Amino acid sequence: MSVVEQARRARGAAEALAVATRTVKDAALHAMADALVARTPEILAANAADLAAGREAGLSAAVLDRLALDEGRVAGIADALRQMAALPDPVGEVVRGATLPNGLELRQVRVPFGVVGIIYEGRPNVTVDAAGICLKSGNAALLRGSSSAAHSNAALVAVLRDAVAGAGLPADAVQLLDASTRDSVKELMRARGLVDVLIPRGGASLIRTVVEESTVPVIETGVGNCHVYVDAAADLAKAVAVTVNSKTQRLSTCNTAESLLVHAAVADAFLPAVLAAFADAGVTVHGDARAAAYSDAVVPATEEDFDTEYLSADISVAVVDSLDAAVAHIRRHGTGHTEAIVTDSQPAAREFVARVDAAAVMVNASTRFTDGGEFGFGAEIGISTQKLHARGPMGLPELTSTKYVVTGDGHLR
Amino acid sequence: MSVVEQARRARGAAEALAVATRTVKDAALHAMADALVARTPEILAANAADLAAGREAGLSAAVLDRLALDEGRVAGIADALRQMAALPDPVGEVVRGATLPNGLELRQVRVPFGVVGIIYEGRPNVTVDAAGICLKSGNAALLRGSSSAAHSNAALVAVLRDAVAGAGLPADAVQLLDASTRDSVKELMRARGLVDVLIPRGGASLIRTVVEESTVPVIETGVGNCHVYVDAAADLAKAVAVTVNSKTQRLSTCNTAESLLVHAAVADAFLPAVLAAFADAGVTVHGDARAAAYSDAVVPATEEDFDTEYLSADISVAVVDSLDAAVAHIRRHGTGHTEAIVTDSQPAAREFVARVDAAAVMVNASTRFTDGGEFGFGAEIGISTQKLHARGPMGLPELTSTKYVVTGDGHLR
Repeated sequence: MSVVEQARRARGAAEALAVATRTVKDAALHAMADALVARTPEILAANAADLAAGREAGLSAAVLDRLALDEGRVAGIADALRQMAALPDPVGEVVRGATLPNGLELRQVRVPFGVVGIIYEGRPNVTVDAAGICLKSGNAALLRGSSSAAHSNAALVAVLRDAVAGAGLPADAVQLLDASTRDSVKELMRARGLVDVLIPRGGASLIRTVVEESTVPVIETGVGNCHVYVDAAADLAKAVAVTVNSKTQRLSTCNTAESLLVHAAVADAFLPAVLAAFADAGVTVHGDARAAAYSDAVVPATEEDFDTEYLSADISVAVVDSLDAAVAHIRRHGTGHTEAIVTDSQPAAREFVARVDAAAVMVNASTRFTDGGEFGFGAEIGISTQKLHARGPMGLPELTSTKYVVTGDGHLR
Repeated sequence: MSVVEQARRARGAAEALAVATRTVKDAALHAMADALVARTPEILAANAADLAAGREAGLSAAVLDRLALDEGRVAGIADALRQMAALPDPVGEVVRGATLPNGLELRQVRVPFGVVGIIYEGRPNVTVDAAGICLKSGNAALLRGSSSAAHSNAALVAVLRDAVAGAGLPADAVQLLDASTRDSVKELMRARGLVDVLIPRGGASLIRTVVEESTVPVIETGVGNCHVYVDAAADLAKAVAVTVNSKTQRLSTCNTAESLLVHAAVADAFLPAVLAAFADAGVTVHGDARAAAYSDAVVPATEEDFDTEYLSADISVAVVDSLDAAVAHIRRHGTGHTEAIVTDSQPAAREFVARVDAAAVMVNASTRFTDGGEFGFGAEIGISTQKLHARGPMGLPELTSTKYVVTGDGHLR
């Protein structure tokens, strides 16, 4: 079936989803969770086929681990659906409302987008997560996963569609697109009018392609060249802890710190301590000349280093002469994801927060906190680094639009 | 100067605007208003040059009227800036906030987009309005008006820039792009990273071009193929009044009704009355076969008529057998702008509101109410017909993004 035909079916399903009550949608989410558990054997069989193909294709151990399912992981994925069912329904929320001077009653109400396309990496749990988040927010999902997870995704989506239909909603609320060809991505990007929003998740090149070529509105996610700035007035023990946590708590996430900026006034006191901590943690430091003066282990940083989202045990380090210089550096190299300051100075924190243009600004906290789960949203479809519509972690409300409902009694202008 | 260079200067100005207080911004708006009044003669001289060129080029009387300024109109434009100064500042508004279980303080705060590009038609008042709305919301404006208003816009922007600079903000907060060539539109559409959002106002073909070609995020405005559906349970006197007001109160606006759907059960009682009213108002009715049976004056409607935004004294009319058929017709032909139902039936109103997918749904009220002024927003940059970011009339908050500010005390994950 062509992507356009799948998108048309999704539109039909979206009409039913838009008027489905929370009770019905939550019942569907529970049915999806129960079905995943009940049909775990067929899911694991399909996953085994992907793993075998992946091993043959020479995928790395890390990639294979992200791809792998077992009974416990399937149960965890099912539990995530049950947790979504417990979240409030964003649809129908009155965002704004008033009675106008002429007596017209004005309400701005959250409504689903309609059809949401998601392009994502080889993690089968995202298939279920995305399907669940879309369904809860009243949207039909067009899922374009990775070819490396094709068997797993097909099995998961078959289970989910049966459960959705069994709960009285259209099976076409959840559809998997052909992952064997790039054509499905192209068709999806051109399905303006049928697909309401496209969310690319994954590497910088995929995101760039979609942003450049899509006529369907896009919510850009992901690339995070996040900085920690250690201010002249920083508590240095906290600064070491926040810096190391931001870099090492998990290496491969978009909210991981990739660059450290140190105020010259505390460089002597701070850099030896943090360089020692990085050495202990196995992190390679790519430093400018001033940072390199503090340790022979520092690798000279190029300008390119300061633009690099390493996603590995590497960090770039520069010494700056002022908060102003730190802000300028972040403006030049940041990607608008998460920027952190460590300082005990209230004026410094205030200025950094006001002047740094990013989805999230941390004061005396790890960059790793930019996360829908950490923020208490309960579910997350990605972290937006654009300014339009949604910025930062996107939960259920970010998967909705609004509609003005205006009620009168024969009102005329 | 190239658009890219202008966009770079706008970025610099945007940094200052983002941290400008409401006091400073409102003072600038008042200075802009005062300067427009004080320097009216030079503005009118420039406008006279545009009008002379327009007459020579054979522009219609209606277009020349939209282009024309006089002392009263300039005073009115200046007053609109003073009214903007009286509106609350959207920047800094805390949209959401909580203390997380671990003690982290989370705030989601409105921030300006940064640089906003606006492409618009030949109305000089839009130049001032757009500059004012952008400044109040902390954004630098790149204005690409019509070549037919080039002299007027140059004079207005010169006055505004002097006033902005005199109030202590960067003059480059307001910049006019070259309107003599389409290249400036192309460059604007490709200035991703320098321009944060692009708002095309004007005809369907301009909007389509921008949506297709822009890599800068776009907010689509404008095209309104708006319907009035007269339900079986309508109060027919109200139905005639709402229909005629929706069509005729102003012919050339995007919230003007272009199509009337009549439930078959009330066609005999309603159509003769509304057709007589349209005849009195000089409106040509393009009807389907069932509507045509009620008057010889009805012109046969083609399928294309039902897709047409006339913006003139024309309306398409169809008789439908049910609310369901009306919703289906609107799904097929509507542009998601404004759709109205006239009914005294609560279930019918509820169903119509729930199932019709549009920026605004009117119950027993004229489609003409979809308007920032009517909604009480105080200022409007356009009416969005897209679902992402803003839908319906866009006021000051719709010209902002948000930023998460997370404050801790050395918090780690």
